[in-house]
Amino acid sequence: MRSYRKELWFDIPARREFRNITSQVERCLQESGIQEGLLLCNAMHITASVFINDDESGLHQDFERWLEGLAPHEPLSNYLHNNTGEDNGDAHLKRTVMGREVVVAVTGGRLDFGPWEQIFYGEFDGRRRKRVLVKIIGE
Amino acid sequence: MRSYRKELWFDIPARREFRNITSQVERCLQESGIQEGLLLCNAMHITASVFINDDESGLHQDFERWLEGLAPHEPLSNYLHNNTGEDNGDAHLKRTVMGREVVVAVTGGRLDFGPWEQIFYGEFDGRRRKRVLVKIIGE
Amino acid sequence: MRSYRKELWFDIPARREFRNITSQVERCLQESGIQEGLLLCNAMHITASVFINDDESGLHQDFERWLEGLAPHEPLSNYLHNNTGEDNGDAHLKRTVMGREVVVAVTGGRLDFGPWEQIFYGEFDGRRRKRVLVKIIGE
Repeated sequence: MRSYRKELWFDIPARREFRNITSQVERCLQESGIQEGLLLCNAMHITASVFINDDESGLHQDFERWLEGLAPHEPLSNYLHNNTGEDNGDAHLKRTVMGREVVVAVTGGRLDFGPWEQIFYGEFDGRRRKRVLVKIIGE
Repeated sequence: MRSYRKELWFDIPARREFRNITSQVERCLQESGIQEGLLLCNAMHITASVFINDDESGLHQDFERWLEGLAPHEPLSNYLHNNTGEDNGDAHLKRTVMGREVVVAVTGGRLDFGPWEQIFYGEFDGRRRKRVLVKIIGE
Repeated sequence: MRSYRKELWFDIPARREFRNITSQVERCLQESGIQEGLLLCNAMHITASVFINDDESGLHQDFERWLEGLAPHEPLSNYLHNNTGEDNGDAHLKRTVMGREVVVAVTGGRLDFGPWEQIFYGEFDGRRRKRVLVKIIGE
């Protein structure tokens, strides 16, 4: 069995953004040389997400508005977590809806994806450097 | 290390449905001959879900009504994504709540499940052929 | 390839609670002796969750209030599932939001975590013995 590990760093200038990281993850897979196995890609921070969906800007705006409805950023006093001096109570909840991680099949040295599947980094408390982990095991 | 891959095809006649696919996934595991490892089962489409819960029809109706409350299908104009000519903006959001994938332990050649765990395909934009991927790695 | 399996048992005295199980999962990893691989940790019950977030009590109260807003426990008649004689319709939905499982990278014999990542057992229908599964594969 072989294994591979890499950290991808992001410094999103806004509080929230969705960024397509599929090509970066594909490069990791090529570097690993693994042909058959499983690939884990997860946010290493608890106010960010890694998820799979469509690369369509209207949809991303729908996600943004929907998440803001489910867990509004303001008023900050809505969240006990913000009593710690943070202002990211909402970000923990938004990331929970979108998910921490994806697991992707590796087949023939490729991400084994359906036609529209793309991997996104979802930032909900940006404006600082944060990491995503890529771990691959297989042969 | 051994690996196994299979696509399961579905053509759900309604827009939305939950279908128990546990026995199909179990057949994949038997075919693979893998005794110890991990099994990934994921929707290959971004308006469908694979999730684990109870096979109880009342609960499934509760899920349906709850998801329709969280992300209503209509009015279609609620979703910018529908400006692309699609009418499935809600389906992307519903699938996000239910999840894309499950990872299941394989122990002694069996799905290592608790007493009520069953695997479901969740369709949110049906009436066409769509796929689920089963990938197993182990020994 | 090596594999390891363990069940962790919980008997939460309240209906709902979040419990930090990171150290128990770390002990499993040490016992396994696995240095590089993937670790799956999942609830074996469909009204409980395993998730990764921050160990901050204010945040946990925010999660509790937020989930109760998304899927209130009462009135029990809101859920067709409760017609089966159960009173846990809401618990199935809450667990769905929080997720069934986490997959964690194992690197150098450690859980490969970001600075604040901790693993929690989320109980939504407690007051009885329930299980979490830890499965590790690797080398």
